[in-house]
Amino acid sequence: MSSYKAPLDDIRFALFDVLDSEATFARLGFADANRELVDAVIDEAARFAETVLAPLNKVGDEVGCKFDPASGDVAVPPGFKQAFDQFVEGGWTGLTNEPEHGGQGMPAALGGVLTELVDSANLAWGNFPMLSHGAVKALETYGEDWQKEAFLKPLVAGTWTGTMCLTEPHCGTDLGLLKTRAVPNGDGSYAITGTKIFITAGEHDMSGNIVHLVLAKLPDAPPGAKGISLFVTPKFKVARDGSVGERNALRCGSIEHKMGIHGSATCVMNFDGAQGYLVGEPHKGLQAMFVMMNSARLGVGVQGLGLSERAYQNALRYSRERLQSRSLSGPKNPDKPADPIIVHPDVRRMLLSQKALVEGGRLLSLHAYSLLDAAEHEADPAARERADTLVSFLTPISKACQTEWSIENTYNALQCFGGHGYIAEHGMEQYARDARITTLYEGTTGIQALDLIGRKTAASQGAGLKLFLGMIEEFAKAHEGDAALAEFIGPLRAKAAEWGKLTIDTLQRAASNPEELGAASYDYLFYSGYVVLAYWWARSVAAAEASPRSQAFKDAKRETARFYFARILPRTLAHKAAIDSGAAPLMAMPAELFGD
Amino acid sequence: MSSYKAPLDDIRFALFDVLDSEATFARLGFADANRELVDAVIDEAARFAETVLAPLNKVGDEVGCKFDPASGDVAVPPGFKQAFDQFVEGGWTGLTNEPEHGGQGMPAALGGVLTELVDSANLAWGNFPMLSHGAVKALETYGEDWQKEAFLKPLVAGTWTGTMCLTEPHCGTDLGLLKTRAVPNGDGSYAITGTKIFITAGEHDMSGNIVHLVLAKLPDAPPGAKGISLFVTPKFKVARDGSVGERNALRCGSIEHKMGIHGSATCVMNFDGAQGYLVGEPHKGLQAMFVMMNSARLGVGVQGLGLSERAYQNALRYSRERLQSRSLSGPKNPDKPADPIIVHPDVRRMLLSQKALVEGGRLLSLHAYSLLDAAEHEADPAARERADTLVSFLTPISKACQTEWSIENTYNALQCFGGHGYIAEHGMEQYARDARITTLYEGTTGIQALDLIGRKTAASQGAGLKLFLGMIEEFAKAHEGDAALAEFIGPLRAKAAEWGKLTIDTLQRAASNPEELGAASYDYLFYSGYVVLAYWWARSVAAAEASPRSQAFKDAKRETARFYFARILPRTLAHKAAIDSGAAPLMAMPAELFGD
Repeated sequence: MSSYKAPLDDIRFALFDVLDSEATFARLGFADANRELVDAVIDEAARFAETVLAPLNKVGDEVGCKFDPASGDVAVPPGFKQAFDQFVEGGWTGLTNEPEHGGQGMPAALGGVLTELVDSANLAWGNFPMLSHGAVKALETYGEDWQKEAFLKPLVAGTWTGTMCLTEPHCGTDLGLLKTRAVPNGDGSYAITGTKIFITAGEHDMSGNIVHLVLAKLPDAPPGAKGISLFVTPKFKVARDGSVGERNALRCGSIEHKMGIHGSATCVMNFDGAQGYLVGEPHKGLQAMFVMMNSARLGVGVQGLGLSERAYQNALRYSRERLQSRSLSGPKNPDKPADPIIVHPDVRRMLLSQKALVEGGRLLSLHAYSLLDAAEHEADPAARERADTLVSFLTPISKACQTEWSIENTYNALQCFGGHGYIAEHGMEQYARDARITTLYEGTTGIQALDLIGRKTAASQGAGLKLFLGMIEEFAKAHEGDAALAEFIGPLRAKAAEWGKLTIDTLQRAASNPEELGAASYDYLFYSGYVVLAYWWARSVAAAEASPRSQAFKDAKRETARFYFARILPRTLAHKAAIDSGAAPLMAMPAELFGD
Repeated sequence: MSSYKAPLDDIRFALFDVLDSEATFARLGFADANRELVDAVIDEAARFAETVLAPLNKVGDEVGCKFDPASGDVAVPPGFKQAFDQFVEGGWTGLTNEPEHGGQGMPAALGGVLTELVDSANLAWGNFPMLSHGAVKALETYGEDWQKEAFLKPLVAGTWTGTMCLTEPHCGTDLGLLKTRAVPNGDGSYAITGTKIFITAGEHDMSGNIVHLVLAKLPDAPPGAKGISLFVTPKFKVARDGSVGERNALRCGSIEHKMGIHGSATCVMNFDGAQGYLVGEPHKGLQAMFVMMNSARLGVGVQGLGLSERAYQNALRYSRERLQSRSLSGPKNPDKPADPIIVHPDVRRMLLSQKALVEGGRLLSLHAYSLLDAAEHEADPAARERADTLVSFLTPISKACQTEWSIENTYNALQCFGGHGYIAEHGMEQYARDARITTLYEGTTGIQALDLIGRKTAASQGAGLKLFLGMIEEFAKAHEGDAALAEFIGPLRAKAAEWGKLTIDTLQRAASNPEELGAASYDYLFYSGYVVLAYWWARSVAAAEASPRSQAFKDAKRETARFYFARILPRTLAHKAAIDSGAAPLMAMPAELFGD
C-alpha cells in the first residue's frame, strides 16, 4: 500500500532558507503571513493531505467517476465529496484569493505549497479546486463588477467550482479553429452553442453550481484566433443580482475513459443555446484565457512535482526494505540473507535522480509562485515588471520540465519495485498513469517549448533569460572564493555562458529560417530546465551551509547537488548538440517518406 | 481505433538487403529457407497478425483474464483461444524448432520476424507461445530422452504450453534466496512444494496441459544460487511413457491486477507436493534457466520493438490527418483551415525518433537472432564460438535498449495525439501501459546493464565488444573513400574508438573499486546501444544505396540516418559524462540521508 508523508522539512528549507520567504512576504505586504502563521497553515495542509486526501487516492483510481447518460450527471468517487466539503469548510479554496472576495489573502507561494501537498496526496481530486482557481483569476482580471459580485464569492468559498472550456473535437492547440458560437440574446446575455471536450470537472456532484468559462465566437468575429471571446456560462443560470435560477441549456454528454486520473471527471460538454455573459472585451478572449492558463500551467508543473515526491517516498521505503543480492563491495547486512537494494549503485542512481529532480524542482516552482507575488505586490513598478517577465519565462520551463520529470521520476520509482511495481497493489503504476496526463493538458510539452523559445525568448529579445542569467551571476559573485561552493559555481557559470551563446546562435539561425525555432524548441526547453536546476542546487548547498541545520541535512544537500552536477546536468551536452544540428535533420525528409 | 499493418518492406530490407539472410540461411544449411519460402512465411505471418491477432488487442486489454477462485481456473479474453487454435493449426508454434520434435526447422532469424509481427499485433497474446519457447529450449538442452519424447512434441505442436517458474514473493533477481523445495519421492520423481509468483501463462484454458519448469532446492542443496535445481512439473501428470494422468498438486492461487498486458495471465502458482522430474544435473538449475532466459530476453527486446512499430504507425497516420496550426514557414495546406501536424518540427522530432529507433532496432534484433543461427549451425567451430560470444554480448543491449526505447517510442506516439492519446479510444495509452512491463520482466534494465558490463564485458576481457568493434571497422574500411557514406563513417569510427577507450577506462577504475561497474552499468548499456544503432544506420544507408530500391526508399533511409546521427547519437555525450564521473556521486551519500 502506498503511503504519503508531507515533506515539511524540505518545503520549509525551500521557502525559508533558500527563498527567504519570511522577509519577502513582509516586504510585499502580506502582514498575516508571518512565520508562525505560515508554519501553522503548512502543518494543517499537510495533515489534511495525509489523512483525508491520500487515503482516497486509490479508491479514486479504482472506482473513478461515473456518468449517468439519462441525467447527464457525474458522480465522483466515494469520499471525494466529503473531502471537498472539509476542504471548503477549512477555507482552503480561497487561501490565496483576495479578502474582498472572501479569500485569505495569503501569498501565491503558500498556495504553491498547498498545491503540492494536495497533488501528492490525490492528483485526481486536486483537479477540482485547481480549475476554480483559473476561473477566479479570469473573472478578477476581466469580469464586470456584477460578475465579480455574483461569481467570485461562491467560487472563492468553494461552494461553486469553475472550469475552462477551450478544446473542441477538432481543435486543441489551434483555438482559432473553434466552432462554438455566441449569439446575442438582446438582453445583454448570449446564447452559447457548441461542443467542448476534455473539460476537467465539467460536471460533478460536489458543488452547488459549476461556472464554465467558455471560449466562443460572436457573429461578427474576425476569422482565426483574433475572433475568440470569453463567456461565463454557469450550470444553473445566474442573474445580474446574483440570484441563482433554473438549469442552463448545457449538459455533460459523456466522460472519457482515460489512462489515469480516473477520479477526475473529464467531460464532453454540450452547450445548446446556454445563457452566457461576455467576460472582457469582444474578440479578446484569448488574452483572458492566458490569464487562466498561466496560473494553471504553474499548477500542472506542481502536479508533476507532487506525483514525483510521493513516488520517490515509496521507492525509497521499498529500496530500504527489499532485501535482494549482496553489495558489489561485500555484504552490508551480513545478518540477513541479502542486502537492501539501496546498496546497489543503479538503485541509488534511480533514487538520486528522483531526489535531485524533486528537491530542485520544488525550488523552481516555489520561486515561480513567489514571482507571481512580486509581480503583483512589489512597490516598485520596475520590480513588478521584472518579476512578471521572469515568471513568464519560467512558466513553460516549470510546466514542461516538471511534468516530463514526473514521467521519469514515476518511471524510476516503479522500476525500483521491479515486477512488483507493475501490479496495482503497490500503487506505483497509478502514479505513472496519472503522471502521463501532465505533459498533455494545459498545453503539451511541445507547446511549452515553442512558448519558451518563441514568445518568451525570441519575441522579447531574451528579457527573461537575461534576468535569470543575472541571478546566476549575482549568486556566483556573492560566493566567489567560497571554497565550499567552488565545485558548483565554476560549472554553473560555464553553463550560464553557454546558455546565453546557445540562445544567440539559435535566434540568429532562426532569423533566416523560422523552422529553426521549432526545431530547437524541445531541446532548448530541457537545456534551460537543467541549467535552472543547477542554479537551484548550487543555491541549496549555499543555503544549507548558511543555515543552522544538522550536518546530516547539509551533507544530504551537498551529495545530492554533486550527483546532480555529475549525472544529470551532462544531459545538456546532448540537448546542445541536438540544437546545434539545426532544422535540416528534422525538416529535410518529405512527409510521404515517413512510412506507408 | 488503432490499426496495424505489418512493415513487410522494412523487414525484407533488414533481412535480405542488410543482413544478407538468403545467403546466410543457405550457408547454415537451412535448405528449405529459400527466398520464396521465407517470403511466403512472412506474408502469411503478417496476414495472421493483422487479421486475427490485431483485432483482439483491445478486447484483451478491456476484458483481461478472469480468475475463478473456486476452481483456480483462468479464462483468457474472448477470441484468444480461437486465435491460439489457428496459430497451432498453422504450425506456427514450432516454426524454428527441430523437425525431429515436429518443428519446421526454420532459422531463428525468421522466428524473430514472427515474434515482431505477433507482438505488434497483440503483445499480451504473444506471451502464451513465447513462454513455451523457453521451456522447449531448456528441455532440448538438458532434458533426459524420455522427457524430450514426452514433452517436446506437444510443446512444439502447441497443444501444450510451457512456463518458467522462477520468482517467489521474496526473491526475483536474487534466486539464491528461493524457498521452493523438491523432495525425492523414491520413484525418480520429486515432490515440489512452494509458491511462485509472476508466472506468465501459469494457468489458462487454451491448451491441454501446461508444462511448468520450476526452480527449487533439493534437500542436500548447498546454500545460495549454487543450490538450485530445475524440475519439469506439468499441470496434468505425465508418466515416463508420455501418458497423461491426473491433475498434479499445483494450482493457480490468483492472478495479478496489472498496469497493462491484461490479456496475459500473470499467476501466483502454488505447488503442494506436485510431482516433478529433475531436468539436467542437481544444483545446476541456474545454468538451464539461463538457456530459457537468454532466448526469452531477445524475445522481450522484440516485444519492445513490436509495440514501438505499431505505436509509430498510428502516430504517423494521426500526424498526417490531424489539422492544427500553420507551418512556421507558411501554410503547407492553404485550402484547408490548418496544416497537418506533421509539418511542425517538434512533431517531426517525435516521429523521426520513433522511426530511427524502430528501424535501427529491427536490425539489432534480427542480427542477434541470426547470430543464434550461426552459433548453432556454422560449420567452423571458431565461427560458432564467435557468434555465441557476440550474441551473448548483444542480448542485454537488445533486451534493455529496445524495451526502454519502447517506453520512449510509445510515449512519443501518444504525445503526437495530444490529449486524445490519453483516452482509451485511440489505443495509444494501451501501448504505453503494455510497454511498461518489458523493462521489468526477464531481468530489469538494471540487471541487463550489470550483465553487459560484468559477465559480458569485464569477465570476458571485452571479447564481445572487440567483435562488434571489428564489425564496425570492417564496414568502415569497406566504404573508405565512399563519398556518399563519409558523413556517417567518420562519426561512427570516432564513436567506436571512444567506446573502446571508455570501456578500458571503466574497467580500470573497477579493478580497484567493484562499485564502479555497477555505477557505470546503466549509462554504459545505453552508450553501447546508441553506438550499435549508429552502426546499423550507417549500414542501412549503404545497403539501401546498393539495392535496386526506389530513390524514395533510399532517401528515407539516408534522412533518417542523418536524423539519428544528429539528434539521437549525441545522447552518448551525456552517458559518457555520467560514466566518467565514476561511482562517488552515487555511493557517497549514506542510505539514511536519502530521506525520512
